[in-house]
Amino acid sequence: MEKTIAIVGLGLIGGSLAMALKGFEGHRVVGVVRREATAEYARDHGVGDEVTLDAAGALRRADMTVLCINPKDIVSFLEEHKEEFKPGSLVTDVCGIKSAVMAAAEILPDHVDFIGGHPMAGTEFSGIEHALPDLFRSAHYLITPRADSRPEHIALLERMAAYIGCKDVVKTTPEEHDDIIAYTSQMMHIIAVSVCDDESLFSCQGFEGSSFRGCTRVADLDVELWTQLFSMNTSALGAALDRLADNLDSYRAALRSGDTELLRSKLSWSAGRKHRTNLGERSTDPYYV
Amino acid sequence: MEKTIAIVGLGLIGGSLAMALKGFEGHRVVGVVRREATAEYARDHGVGDEVTLDAAGALRRADMTVLCINPKDIVSFLEEHKEEFKPGSLVTDVCGIKSAVMAAAEILPDHVDFIGGHPMAGTEFSGIEHALPDLFRSAHYLITPRADSRPEHIALLERMAAYIGCKDVVKTTPEEHDDIIAYTSQMMHIIAVSVCDDESLFSCQGFEGSSFRGCTRVADLDVELWTQLFSMNTSALGAALDRLADNLDSYRAALRSGDTELLRSKLSWSAGRKHRTNLGERSTDPYYV
Repeated sequence: MEKTIAIVGLGLIGGSLAMALKGFEGHRVVGVVRREATAEYARDHGVGDEVTLDAAGALRRADMTVLCINPKDIVSFLEEHKEEFKPGSLVTDVCGIKSAVMAAAEILPDHVDFIGGHPMAGTEFSGIEHALPDLFRSAHYLITPRADSRPEHIALLERMAAYIGCKDVVKTTPEEHDDIIAYTSQMMHIIAVSVCDDESLFSCQGFEGSSFRGCTRVADLDVELWTQLFSMNTSALGAALDRLADNLDSYRAALRSGDTELLRSKLSWSAGRKHRTNLGERSTDPYYV
Repeated sequence: MEKTIAIVGLGLIGGSLAMALKGFEGHRVVGVVRREATAEYARDHGVGDEVTLDAAGALRRADMTVLCINPKDIVSFLEEHKEEFKPGSLVTDVCGIKSAVMAAAEILPDHVDFIGGHPMAGTEFSGIEHALPDLFRSAHYLITPRADSRPEHIALLERMAAYIGCKDVVKTTPEEHDDIIAYTSQMMHIIAVSVCDDESLFSCQGFEGSSFRGCTRVADLDVELWTQLFSMNTSALGAALDRLADNLDSYRAALRSGDTELLRSKLSWSAGRKHRTNLGERSTDPYYV
């Protein structure tokens, strides 16, 4: 019998996922949206095999449901629809925060499995009109299974991640996820907006190169999404930013000192650390050039 | 009569330039290097029409000389070879600092024109083996002509920049260049190394996405080159880093306050600034995705 995947929310991530999942193990991909305009756009552009505003109808037949909405919307969606998921089905999400989402998923009945998910993909754009079928290419797909998550559900996510082009699936805990993501993702966004707050932002145009674009690319972020993500992880993010401030201060002091040897030795140390993370090899990630 | 361009230093930039200039208005491209190993590599890979260790011989016949060596090496090269440049010729450089280089070029005799140059291109790799003919594609080419620089020399640089694929040529002063580059380029490198100094660098692998790679890509930098660039611009770089620290502190305070409205409003302001810099359009820059 044909299996069904429901994708709740067809924004940048949900839309891209619906495109990328086309034909995955014969599943029927059903997009669930709130606005008729999104449904029309999705139908016109062939995003998903079917698009509906009837969440309950889709959830009842979905063997897997992927929540591609903001963290706070996940909380209210689970609360509102908790009785409508198909018994024995897998529910997962794609959200950049895991502790709060895993806690919210406690509301689900026992006959529904929940595994947190976070494909490390995205662009600085949002909305279905920016969705890309190859958005997930070479990305890490982080998952946070529960202790009692069914092995076949983990295996299903692993096959799905491979099908959409992810580099690998990394299993972690919600706490570890949020702690590390504060550094690798959230802090990058705070850096990007802070750099763009500089008084020179508009007068510097014509003088920017790839390092500036690489650092500030994500500054034009989805404000509501990132307000939620940051607010749900203030402690880990604050700690990461404290460490950054210390490391920046150390470079500022070296510059102020006028001690060229100290500066050279610091740069040598830092560059060596970076070098060891990838041994200078070019990645196949399309975002890494 | 065939014209000649001498490229002094065949590293990442010089090597790429020699490749990109192949066939430019019928010029003969002569690479000038210090080590026989580099000369051999260049010859084996067809970098330049000719490669020589004889700087004086090349300079005497070069209608344009492009110095693609470190800033301190530029100073000593000009001092050593000042009498060898062809009368009426143009000398330029590709260095990320302009005040110190323009000052050093004062040593040249009156019959040689010097125009500072800085194509905003590069990768995190160095050396001829990483040179790329399309390295300059879509990059800004900054130039700092002297008050008495000859218009035909400026026009030559403009045609050269267009030929190698640059997006545009931006004329500026050495002081303005160094002031703005402190923000758009040097600060990006200090951010990248500071992020890589974090204790989580090695344990975060598997959790990194495109924002992390975009921000830290340049951390594996050419230590000697960047030690010189930073040391020659400490005042402007220090000021840019002070402003960054203030802007980061403002976000840290907003996060600590727990005031979600404040955080949302700050993010909205910063994202709006970034949005206005490019109106959300995708650039054709290969480094901007």
